[in-house]
Amino acid sequence: MPRIVQKFGGTSVGDVDRIRKVAERIKKTRDEGNEVVVVVSARSGVTNELLARAKQLNPDPARREMDMLLAVGEQETIALTAMALHAMEVPAVSRTGAQAGILTDSAHTTARIIRINTANIEEPLQENHVVIVAGFQGVDDLGQITTLGRGGSDLSAIALTYVLKADLCQIFTDVDGVYSADPRIVPNARKIPVISYDEMLELASMGSKVMQSRSVEFAKKFGVVFEVRSSFNQNPGTIVKEEASSMEDVVVRGVALDKNQTKVTISGIPDQPGTAAGVFQALAEAGVVVDMIVQNVGRQGKANLTFTVTRDDAERARKTIETLIADEEEGSVTVEGDVAKLSVVGVGMRTHSGVASTLFKALAEESVNIQLISTSEIKISVVIEESRSDEALRKVHGAFGLEQEALPKPQIGNSPIA
Amino acid sequence: MPRIVQKFGGTSVGDVDRIRKVAERIKKTRDEGNEVVVVVSARSGVTNELLARAKQLNPDPARREMDMLLAVGEQETIALTAMALHAMEVPAVSRTGAQAGILTDSAHTTARIIRINTANIEEPLQENHVVIVAGFQGVDDLGQITTLGRGGSDLSAIALTYVLKADLCQIFTDVDGVYSADPRIVPNARKIPVISYDEMLELASMGSKVMQSRSVEFAKKFGVVFEVRSSFNQNPGTIVKEEASSMEDVVVRGVALDKNQTKVTISGIPDQPGTAAGVFQALAEAGVVVDMIVQNVGRQGKANLTFTVTRDDAERARKTIETLIADEEEGSVTVEGDVAKLSVVGVGMRTHSGVASTLFKALAEESVNIQLISTSEIKISVVIEESRSDEALRKVHGAFGLEQEALPKPQIGNSPIA
Repeated sequence: MPRIVQKFGGTSVGDVDRIRKVAERIKKTRDEGNEVVVVVSARSGVTNELLARAKQLNPDPARREMDMLLAVGEQETIALTAMALHAMEVPAVSRTGAQAGILTDSAHTTARIIRINTANIEEPLQENHVVIVAGFQGVDDLGQITTLGRGGSDLSAIALTYVLKADLCQIFTDVDGVYSADPRIVPNARKIPVISYDEMLELASMGSKVMQSRSVEFAKKFGVVFEVRSSFNQNPGTIVKEEASSMEDVVVRGVALDKNQTKVTISGIPDQPGTAAGVFQALAEAGVVVDMIVQNVGRQGKANLTFTVTRDDAERARKTIETLIADEEEGSVTVEGDVAKLSVVGVGMRTHSGVASTLFKALAEESVNIQLISTSEIKISVVIEESRSDEALRKVHGAFGLEQEALPKPQIGNSPIA
Repeated sequence: MPRIVQKFGGTSVGDVDRIRKVAERIKKTRDEGNEVVVVVSARSGVTNELLARAKQLNPDPARREMDMLLAVGEQETIALTAMALHAMEVPAVSRTGAQAGILTDSAHTTARIIRINTANIEEPLQENHVVIVAGFQGVDDLGQITTLGRGGSDLSAIALTYVLKADLCQIFTDVDGVYSADPRIVPNARKIPVISYDEMLELASMGSKVMQSRSVEFAKKFGVVFEVRSSFNQNPGTIVKEEASSMEDVVVRGVALDKNQTKVTISGIPDQPGTAAGVFQALAEAGVVVDMIVQNVGRQGKANLTFTVTRDDAERARKTIETLIADEEEGSVTVEGDVAKLSVVGVGMRTHSGVASTLFKALAEESVNIQLISTSEIKISVVIEESRSDEALRKVHGAFGLEQEALPKPQIGNSPIA
């Protein structure tokens, strides 16, 4: 019998009516002849309520107690989901992370899965039950409740798919799948039916809210095939899997825009070994996460170093560099917040020439100036002025022919359909 | 170092401000040189919210899933209480029922404690931590979460006091202690400083909301001394313990009134062996709980049988008896709802004469007619008309001199003091 893991996020189980709809979908999957393991998140809003109470009592709560507190969210959902299935005469049983055998290390609030003892899941499956597992949580070898951090429920689902040797993992969320571009900016963007892990990772790292990179990396490492699809309609979603030969026919899978970028330029610093290392060590110590880095060839023994950071980190980056420059008594720093990063992603591009030139030509035709360029195996990113970035995205999307298929208008957002 | 178990009910931990006050009290107890183990309930209201959601999804939820659901209430409270203590720089750690080693049978929603493995509590105590245990919940030998039913958190506290060999158990609630009568009816009632388990049981069974009989019975069985006191003031409460010789000086400890009574009379039934047995077997099968039973001497081979039931059970009792009488073709049934049961309780009364006559004389002076009388080792109960029962209670309270000591006006209810 085929075995399917279905994961439902917080919006999908946001109230009792939605939990009932989730149960109906589970029942349908089971009625079609599948063994079903379900992973659920906390109802949306619950985690924030719990955090608010915690902060009122303690501005810096202990991580162990935070895990104890947050784990109640999914525990509520698994019980309610089981009850909803029982009301439809579907045999079902719930499992906390600990009961599901999800053993983690003891890094509270950011625990890593060590192994999963599946006996407590296999047994009810053999007895024809749906097994409903609390996502996001596990237990360490001392019996302490742990949580897996952001995106933890996706990780629970993908890890369970692997250890249970399930045939498919479905990640139900409030978006319809992965698109060739953000449909709010590019109305004729189309849903990508199949995408590789690496492409998904590049898109995920670019602020696409579909999934955390961590879960995609785990799926890639263990070869877990999963589908991202909407819990509010019946449309097929996007299948994420290892690159397949047929996938190579497509050069560019999608284009993405990240407006949460600030460009920092350090000018006139010594062009000698160790300069860049000193800069990025200081930034790392200050907790600033650096994204793109470009260093120009210097003149007269001086170099210019440019990098991008998120806007939250911009002020911290400026102060760190100013302190460093003051110590060295050389160089100057400028911070520009009105920039955006536009990226073209596709596994095909590494075996095709011309992707870069198509991108640059499209931007030139829109008279958009390129401030920085950075390339990887499957991605080319450019930093451009933010005010023109939406038009630029639409232009580039069209230049790669991503809109060419006439498909139904993409659905996005959390409007449930009847 | 003295060891104290403190239990705080749902009202006492009803919001973050109250949790902070609870933490202050725990800190004070610890600062006074005690090892402290804390048992907490779910925030008041949480259980009802969870039940409401469950009922919307399933009118008859599975008990196992109900336990899974309800257990989140205390888990939230233990985490928040630990965080509040940490903010006061008190080392503290929380334990779910399972983590606290509270092993129960598998009777979901009404589980019984089998044993408690204290290692996970002793260890942090040795390390000078306050240990905060989720009341009401445990775990069966398959790792399933169980709950102990009504009054379960009191039971958790008393059982932990026993297995941890603690010196005292304090049950903090929204009343000040046990009174010689309900202060809302008898304004000059006084708080009883010390009471025996049996007296407490008689008062508890009479609708006194202080504690469930089950926890008192457990305390009696294992000789656990506990104190009932208010979480909203610093007043000493009522100590509940085995009868002590000094306690015998007092004849009557308190008087109680139970207005949730209905009197059922069956007249003209055969006065022969087996008649009463048939009646009460039929009532038991119908799920009717019978309180007082009185059978008068019959005449001409006929007997009258009178008993009391709660008002909820009155209609069911009537129907059961009517069916029985119809089968036997003899007798008639009358049901009177406007009655109350007044009881005089005290371990001293069994070695003193004159308690019954004092009671009857007091009622006679108030012109209150006695409809039924029932006696036990430590209690005399009478059924009287409800409309006069408040005056009767005040009169009887005075007749036994229970108001004689001039004490501060009793405080009751949940008005927190600063």
